[in-house]
Amino acid sequence: MADIIIVGAGPAGLSAAIYARRAGMSTTLYEAEMYGGQIVNTPEVENYPAVAKISGFDFATNLYNQAMNLGAVLEFDKVASIAKTESGFDVTLASGKVDTAKAVILAVGASNRHLGIAREEELLGKGISYCATCDGAFYKGKTVAVNGGGNTAVEDAIYLAGIVDKVYLIHRRNEFRAEDVLVDAAKKLPNLEIVTPYVVESLLGEPKLTGVELTNKEDGSKKTIDVNGLFVAIGQEPKTADFKDLVTLQGGYIEAGENCKTNVEGIFAAGDARVKKIRQLTTACADGAVAALAAIDYIKLGV
Amino acid sequence: MADIIIVGAGPAGLSAAIYARRAGMSTTLYEAEMYGGQIVNTPEVENYPAVAKISGFDFATNLYNQAMNLGAVLEFDKVASIAKTESGFDVTLASGKVDTAKAVILAVGASNRHLGIAREEELLGKGISYCATCDGAFYKGKTVAVNGGGNTAVEDAIYLAGIVDKVYLIHRRNEFRAEDVLVDAAKKLPNLEIVTPYVVESLLGEPKLTGVELTNKEDGSKKTIDVNGLFVAIGQEPKTADFKDLVTLQGGYIEAGENCKTNVEGIFAAGDARVKKIRQLTTACADGAVAALAAIDYIKLGV
Repeated sequence: MADIIIVGAGPAGLSAAIYARRAGMSTTLYEAEMYGGQIVNTPEVENYPAVAKISGFDFATNLYNQAMNLGAVLEFDKVASIAKTESGFDVTLASGKVDTAKAVILAVGASNRHLGIAREEELLGKGISYCATCDGAFYKGKTVAVNGGGNTAVEDAIYLAGIVDKVYLIHRRNEFRAEDVLVDAAKKLPNLEIVTPYVVESLLGEPKLTGVELTNKEDGSKKTIDVNGLFVAIGQEPKTADFKDLVTLQGGYIEAGENCKTNVEGIFAAGDARVKKIRQLTTACADGAVAALAAIDYIKLGV
Repeated sequence: MADIIIVGAGPAGLSAAIYARRAGMSTTLYEAEMYGGQIVNTPEVENYPAVAKISGFDFATNLYNQAMNLGAVLEFDKVASIAKTESGFDVTLASGKVDTAKAVILAVGASNRHLGIAREEELLGKGISYCATCDGAFYKGKTVAVNGGGNTAVEDAIYLAGIVDKVYLIHRRNEFRAEDVLVDAAKKLPNLEIVTPYVVESLLGEPKLTGVELTNKEDGSKKTIDVNGLFVAIGQEPKTADFKDLVTLQGGYIEAGENCKTNVEGIFAAGDARVKKIRQLTTACADGAVAALAAIDYIKLGV
């Protein structure tokens, strides 16, 4: 039986592994895809404290090496289900294997919803972004668009308006799902233009994004706007579907406070899949540390 | 008027400056001492996610350069007092200067209480530590002592018992202030020995710590124990005295949840001075990011 099983080897999971191993806990990570989580797709990270500039892939690799050098074990297998037992937890893998642990950290992450249009993946980091706080500073003095109608989209547009020359906020409906206070603040900004009811039809430019073609949802007319960046803010999907009967979720995210404790004793949540407002690299790593230290307390003290 | 004034240029304050500047906010940090906070005194940091090994001084310098290159301003002056005004905040410096800002982030940090005995500063990083979670892993296979009687001391001793060969828990009274569940767990560990009622009289060894001389508080007798490390866990002192009438404190720490909002709108708390359980480099940096993003929301949206 391992001391701690960590589900997911993104920034939160690998940070938890570092803290767990430094405390002498036997630690196994299970990861269904590549280590590093969403950050591996980010060409440049410039907002991780004390690391001025690094690619997301290098960041993930540094974190992976740090955890592995401390003796953490990483297995590439998908966790299918987790069950509480008398002595801890049974963790059943997609491969059929069953592993056991005294405590479990769910660091399963979330994925950004994509528009699902041509060239979206190809232009990632070349004009397409899913995180204004992460990438906004790269567009200083430029023109960008935000696509979406919820709080995040409007907040992103307001945030970007403080950095870039001009922001278009594109939404398929004339009404926003975002709170009025946000929409009112957005409308007051001289360099923010609301473009509704439009959907993004296609992405223009080679090799970088230079514009987007829009279709009016009411009359079907088309227009093109020139932009250097398009921030897609149409929602995130926490990867928690397999654990919905195990722990309490809230809007799909795992319910756990700053101490990372879920409603099930011995199960902790860390990173983007946890209910919280700010999802950044640094907050994911901090979550990993907190969840690991909480799991260690649980194993040693039962609290 | 600056957008954001940050009080304290440790990991939390400098991380906040990075996020504030990347959002285009004019940002001034005030620091009474050296930039970097407590971490500058740590010879080796091995638990900051994605940075396998770095000196505390280099870590602080990287963080400082990152913030400065983004256009943050750092002034070496002590903040004497802060007052809310109609348009924001007046920040009065020890030099007599008064600066103004729309929002304030208190990242004032905390300092560890020292024993106040000879050679304590000299042996820092050469056997003396104030943070078991930070430095415990350096003592794998060795013998250490923890000095203190509160929750932190007993938790540290239990934590270290999972890493080192042998832990002495030294306390000046026979009774512990720590919770019973902790003391009971400590007593059950075969490699943890409780040494009471003793005080640490002197530190032995050259150039590294090799032992401590203890005095029995009841009968005045002395004894020496051989240790490679001494973890001093007699409390922390948040540097909040100047702000006790400004924001609500709790045991000296600034009351603010994970969103870093204090009871005063427009004032945010980040890092070791904020009420929370886990005080690590990574959690301080994450706090800085969260506090800055909250301050930006406050400035732009008034919420």
